[in-house]
Amino acid sequence: MPRRRTTENSILAKIAGGSPSNQSGKRLRGSFAHGKRLSLGIGDDAALFRSSRGCETILTCDWFLEGTHFLRRKHPPDSVGWKCLARAVSDIAAMGGAPRCFLLSLAIPENATGEWLDKFLRGLRRAAQHFDCALAGGDTTRRKEILINVTVIGEIAPGRALRRDGANPGDLLYVSSRLGEAERGLRLLQPSNRAAERVLRTNNAQLRRHLYPEPRLALGQWLVKNRIATSAMDISDGLSSDLPRLCAASGVGARVDAAKLPVVTIPSAACSPRHVSGRKALASDVLSLALHGGDDYELLFTAPKSKELQIPPAFAGVAITSIGEITANRKIFLVGTQTQPTLLESRGWDPFR
Amino acid sequence: MPRRRTTENSILAKIAGGSPSNQSGKRLRGSFAHGKRLSLGIGDDAALFRSSRGCETILTCDWFLEGTHFLRRKHPPDSVGWKCLARAVSDIAAMGGAPRCFLLSLAIPENATGEWLDKFLRGLRRAAQHFDCALAGGDTTRRKEILINVTVIGEIAPGRALRRDGANPGDLLYVSSRLGEAERGLRLLQPSNRAAERVLRTNNAQLRRHLYPEPRLALGQWLVKNRIATSAMDISDGLSSDLPRLCAASGVGARVDAAKLPVVTIPSAACSPRHVSGRKALASDVLSLALHGGDDYELLFTAPKSKELQIPPAFAGVAITSIGEITANRKIFLVGTQTQPTLLESRGWDPFR
Repeated sequence: MPRRRTTENSILAKIAGGSPSNQSGKRLRGSFAHGKRLSLGIGDDAALFRSSRGCETILTCDWFLEGTHFLRRKHPPDSVGWKCLARAVSDIAAMGGAPRCFLLSLAIPENATGEWLDKFLRGLRRAAQHFDCALAGGDTTRRKEILINVTVIGEIAPGRALRRDGANPGDLLYVSSRLGEAERGLRLLQPSNRAAERVLRTNNAQLRRHLYPEPRLALGQWLVKNRIATSAMDISDGLSSDLPRLCAASGVGARVDAAKLPVVTIPSAACSPRHVSGRKALASDVLSLALHGGDDYELLFTAPKSKELQIPPAFAGVAITSIGEITANRKIFLVGTQTQPTLLESRGWDPFR
Repeated sequence: MPRRRTTENSILAKIAGGSPSNQSGKRLRGSFAHGKRLSLGIGDDAALFRSSRGCETILTCDWFLEGTHFLRRKHPPDSVGWKCLARAVSDIAAMGGAPRCFLLSLAIPENATGEWLDKFLRGLRRAAQHFDCALAGGDTTRRKEILINVTVIGEIAPGRALRRDGANPGDLLYVSSRLGEAERGLRLLQPSNRAAERVLRTNNAQLRRHLYPEPRLALGQWLVKNRIATSAMDISDGLSSDLPRLCAASGVGARVDAAKLPVVTIPSAACSPRHVSGRKALASDVLSLALHGGDDYELLFTAPKSKELQIPPAFAGVAITSIGEITANRKIFLVGTQTQPTLLESRGWDPFR
């Protein structure tokens, strides 16, 4: 007897939280929140969304591909579900907006339509609830490797979005939380399935930062509400790759103070304090993580010096640190590591380099 | 000397129609229409779209993957560019809406960032202009195979979208144009690069239907404006796979008259009229193409019998054919091929079957 094969309808039904026989546009009621503004969700040719009166719609999409952005044997499916949405929601945070709903495009092999898909959807569902972002629809197909693409729709008051192109010479440069934690977490991740299950219960903050990034939605919205920032973006590829993008968009340069960078803390046991060379290597390592480490999803923003006192040292439990200044000279310098400022080299994530 | 490698910025610049050094949010002016409603396009964390007052937003996304939906050696890149957008726009047509803008997610190998990408973008640009659908943003990365995902944002008056779940017993069932032409075109396509270039200039209508599908936007909007249809969807996977989806959503069945199906015309030279068995085989083949052939992107819709006289035999040059009737019995029968009606078997495209 031939094994009963999965059908596309049964995948859609699982995503929508129903049974295959329940795959009707009329009756689909997902375990995903339907969303107050969704007048039609999964099960038709397209979804229907009612935007808030007078708001601008924010649109963003993000790849999350097996082998490129995650490894099936290394990353728990629950984390893949969380992170594919969190990455795209981080772009909404970087604009200072609020996420409303998302589309999920999923290509998976037959052998991942069981347990892997269930766990993936669990993580995705938690993220959707946490970010108040409803599943509106999507597309599924079969493929040898797992391919994910997420589109998020957000909203913001017209003309108020934080853009990359508003930084002015003299503005101060800020980042949220610590930089390099996610990259350090990636290094801690062990490449075995059992380890992958164990990390779900991990208390290691850096590992959690890699697996379950937290888009800075509240901070972005606060910056918009109080008209603090002149420009902003999220750091996804590493400061040394992302800061040049903000500077290029604004037609400016920057001076980053290495001593001010909020670097990761590494347990002292990892390096004996008696060995000066070891301490130097550690300092250089954490600096390198902060400059070039990817996947942090922290906010990078600029604000005029006149607003300096309005910016607290932490907002909603997340540190905010001034790390340098915007300059008219279009180059980006790192100061404080040598006697002379050095040009900051882009060594973050670029898939084509 | 190392060969100069592509960077992500240079890909984005090419997509936006500028030079790599021009990769700034402020200055990017694409050869893609910017779109009246886009207040911020490519070059920032996300795009900003101003929706029309009082309209509902239509959201849809579609995979278009090398090896699954197209073959690099068989399909001209210009056609890949056109078709990846046309497929997604067809979902907007099926809702009766108007496309406004789209997001492009593109993963490509280094060796496709030159000529292939240029030709791909040419086809995509023509489609974007033809559908009046502006490029709002996207995501690019490197990958061994070409992966494409397109999200289209459309608009429609609130509550007026054509859904799958409104068909009632007694409604007549209609399709636009002919069914099976794209599948027949695929069969004509030769698997060589030279042939791929030649088909760009082809006059073969069926081949063009496969390479350059035309979403039925005008028909969908006309059905909405005149409140003709009770339900609608586009036929992308073949009538025998898509009609069951419409029926399931509406909780109804259907009776399809095989003799009424608008089948493809195959030149008589392909089959000598003297051979009765050959004629029978041909009739069975065109019927099979009409029932199970994919990629047509024609509209399938239902309308009450009271509206029958309002539906012209053709609209905007596209034939409209009544092919059967909706029934209360939830089964789908094909009549006219045997003495007894036969159950219509789903044999269209399903990636998981």
